[in-house]
Amino acid sequence: MAATHTLNPQSTPKAVRKAAREGLLTGPTSGLASGYVQVNLVILPEAEAAGFLRFCQANPKPCPLLAVSEPGTRTCDAIATDLDIARDVPGYRIYRNGVASETVADVADEWRDDLVTFALGCSFTFEHALIQAGLRVRHIDQDRNVPMYQTSVPLTPAGGFKGNLVVSMRPFSAADAIRAIQITTRYPQVHGAPVHLGNPGLIGISELYSPDYGDSVSVAEDEIPVFWACGVTPQQVLIDSGVSFAITHSPGHMLVTDIPDSTLALF
Amino acid sequence: MAATHTLNPQSTPKAVRKAAREGLLTGPTSGLASGYVQVNLVILPEAEAAGFLRFCQANPKPCPLLAVSEPGTRTCDAIATDLDIARDVPGYRIYRNGVASETVADVADEWRDDLVTFALGCSFTFEHALIQAGLRVRHIDQDRNVPMYQTSVPLTPAGGFKGNLVVSMRPFSAADAIRAIQITTRYPQVHGAPVHLGNPGLIGISELYSPDYGDSVSVAEDEIPVFWACGVTPQQVLIDSGVSFAITHSPGHMLVTDIPDSTLALF
Repeated sequence: MAATHTLNPQSTPKAVRKAAREGLLTGPTSGLASGYVQVNLVILPEAEAAGFLRFCQANPKPCPLLAVSEPGTRTCDAIATDLDIARDVPGYRIYRNGVASETVADVADEWRDDLVTFALGCSFTFEHALIQAGLRVRHIDQDRNVPMYQTSVPLTPAGGFKGNLVVSMRPFSAADAIRAIQITTRYPQVHGAPVHLGNPGLIGISELYSPDYGDSVSVAEDEIPVFWACGVTPQQVLIDSGVSFAITHSPGHMLVTDIPDSTLALF
Repeated sequence: MAATHTLNPQSTPKAVRKAAREGLLTGPTSGLASGYVQVNLVILPEAEAAGFLRFCQANPKPCPLLAVSEPGTRTCDAIATDLDIARDVPGYRIYRNGVASETVADVADEWRDDLVTFALGCSFTFEHALIQAGLRVRHIDQDRNVPMYQTSVPLTPAGGFKGNLVVSMRPFSAADAIRAIQITTRYPQVHGAPVHLGNPGLIGISELYSPDYGDSVSVAEDEIPVFWACGVTPQQVLIDSGVSFAITHSPGHMLVTDIPDSTLALF
């Protein structure tokens, strides 16, 4: 496992994928290959894939689609060269009949000729942009996972998929919240602008300090909680929709692509 | 005075200026020549003008400079053709030794060969953009003037001018507040993005329902007050800085330019 320790923010995306492929990297990818887009993966049988594509089209804020593979292929030139989708992620989750049943190191044995891979943008890209603009991101400063919450906001049902929006929260001063809205507006392919700010109860969050996923972070008196659509949404949708079979990345264990973060900026 | 009634949102900017010049229009310009930029005016002797130019440069959010005239001229081709700065505004305010001493219909008799005119962007332009984007602007819906407040936020002193920021307030739902931030970000020359949102006390506003200028508007339980830098700021600065002589438009009685609102959008 010693080789794991050679990975760092300066590692290339290819080096991170290779370490995952060889079983040397089994942990989260946050902070590795800094400046390159990391993506959420959803892998579905072709029979459900067309419906999920319509669902993503109808719900672009939680499900911003960066790329879709051809059925059965374990490559996707649009996001990375020399890619093995079944092995290049440090951890996968398998869903059977609407239940997240296993977390595994690779899915080569589960691979089927009809599987289609969806690569969805991830907030790491906009957090990188926020930090480059001089803002402080609380959960990063506190070395925690971002707090995430189930909401009462229904998604647009499409293609047999349904569920409610899951959001992530980052607290900011008012001036920094305005700046964060401006910056993340530039990145629609990684969730874009916030969906809510202020009173958490208005979107069905009863307790800000008890997130449904991730960790709690402090929010100061003079700060405003700002909520973004979250990439955990599609995982919850797979469960709520009761899909017979699906694979995703394991939370925090993302696929690192060859796409520089900066190329996703609209302007 | 019958001719006044012929002015409406479809009037040309030139027709509005002509009516003001002829004394037929003496009221506010809100809603006239819809779609054209209306500007705040500050007119100063050349001796103070260079300092005020530096002040605007240091405080672009309250003092977004659209144009500066040559000393002594009553025209300004950058904003309008066939312009008479001393007569084409429906009402002027004259300041003597830091006091707003008179409100007059024209300043032809006060004109001096050393006067320099500053044309500063006005929120009418971004309100037009908000409404075109489908947002509701509360004070317009309630047929009132926008509520404005003195704040505890100091401006950057420069060129002998100083004072605190004056803000205007418009309440929105969280989703509309985010949209309003995006839209007004596109218009930096008319105050641009908000300077604050949420808790009014954080910028020294003790009572939201008692504005220092303009009218109070209702703010619903699920709404957030959003604050923009306001064009009243420079008028307050003239008083706080104790200038010996200055002329501005009378509040709400703007100069209507030939510039279409849409040309001020950054993107």
